[in-house]
Amino acid sequence: MTILDSETKAVETPDDHGDELRLWLRLLTCTTMIESEIRSRLRERFEVTLPRFDLMAQLDKTPDGMTLSDVSKRMMVSNGNVTGLVERLVESGHVDRRTSSTDRRVQVIRLTRQGRAEFRKMAAEHERWIAEIFGDLGSKDVADLMKLLAKTKASAKKAVTARMA
Amino acid sequence: MTILDSETKAVETPDDHGDELRLWLRLLTCTTMIESEIRSRLRERFEVTLPRFDLMAQLDKTPDGMTLSDVSKRMMVSNGNVTGLVERLVESGHVDRRTSSTDRRVQVIRLTRQGRAEFRKMAAEHERWIAEIFGDLGSKDVADLMKLLAKTKASAKKAVTARMA
Repeated sequence: MTILDSETKAVETPDDHGDELRLWLRLLTCTTMIESEIRSRLRERFEVTLPRFDLMAQLDKTPDGMTLSDVSKRMMVSNGNVTGLVERLVESGHVDRRTSSTDRRVQVIRLTRQGRAEFRKMAAEHERWIAEIFGDLGSKDVADLMKLLAKTKASAKKAVTARMA
Repeated sequence: MTILDSETKAVETPDDHGDELRLWLRLLTCTTMIESEIRSRLRERFEVTLPRFDLMAQLDKTPDGMTLSDVSKRMMVSNGNVTGLVERLVESGHVDRRTSSTDRRVQVIRLTRQGRAEFRKMAAEHERWIAEIFGDLGSKDVADLMKLLAKTKASAKKAVTARMA
C-alpha cells in the first residue's frame, strides 16, 4: 500500500497520523513477506500453490465434506476459481465429489484418503516453517504480539462496524 | 491460511509450534481485515480500486516519472495488469505518458496536475481511516507493536535468506 513522503503529510494532514500509517505499512510488509515465503516453499518443496493448500486445509477440517458454495465463502475467492481448483484436485485423486444425499442439485467434496495423507504431511512441514519464520521471537514476544494484535483486530472491527452503520 | 485442528497437531507434530501458528493466523486476519476495509472505503468514497490507489501513490513519490517496468517491480503485479491500470489512468486524465528522452523505446509515466491533486485528497483521507482503524491502540501499544513487528520482519528475512542459500 501507500508510503506517503513527509512533505505530503505536512501539507495535507495537519493533524499527524504518521505513526499509525507507519504501523500499518510495517504490518503489511510483515504479512506480505511471510505469505510470499510460504508460497515459495510450498511450490519448491511440494509443487503446490497456496490456494490449493488452503482449500485442502479447509477440507481437512470438515471430514463430512463441504459444498462448493461453503468452500467459496470460507476461502473468499470467486466461485469460478474454486471450481477450477476442485477440478484439478479431483483429477489428481486428492478430492472426491459426490451428489448430496439430501439435495441432488448439490455436490459435496471431500479429501480422499490419499489427499488427507498428503495434506497432513504438508501441514506438518508448514507448521515447522512458521516456527522457523518466527524463530527469533521469544515466548514473551509471541504472547505480547498476540495481545496487541487482538487489540488491533477489535479496533479494526469497530471501524468496519462504524462504516456499515 | 490454514487452521489445523488440535487433533491433527497432536498426531502429526509432536514438537508443538501451535503458538507461532496461531500468531501467524492472527497476523494474517488483522492484515486481511484492514486491507479489505481500506478497499471498501476507497470504492465507496472515491470509486477507486486499491491497485489504482497504490499505483498513484507510487507515482506521487516519483515526480520525475517511472517506467512501466519500474512500476511493475514496485507493485509486485504482472506487467499486463500494470498496462491496463495505466491505460485507464491515462484515459481519465490522471496520468500522462511520454517517450523517454534518453531511450525512445521506453515510456515514462507521471501523475498529471489533476491526478496529483486527486491522489493527495484520497491520501489524506486514507491516513485518517488508518488512524481510525488503529484508534483503540494507545501510543505505547503502537510503539510496542512497531518494535515487535520489526523483530518479526528481521526473523522472517533470516528464514528467506536461509531458504535461498
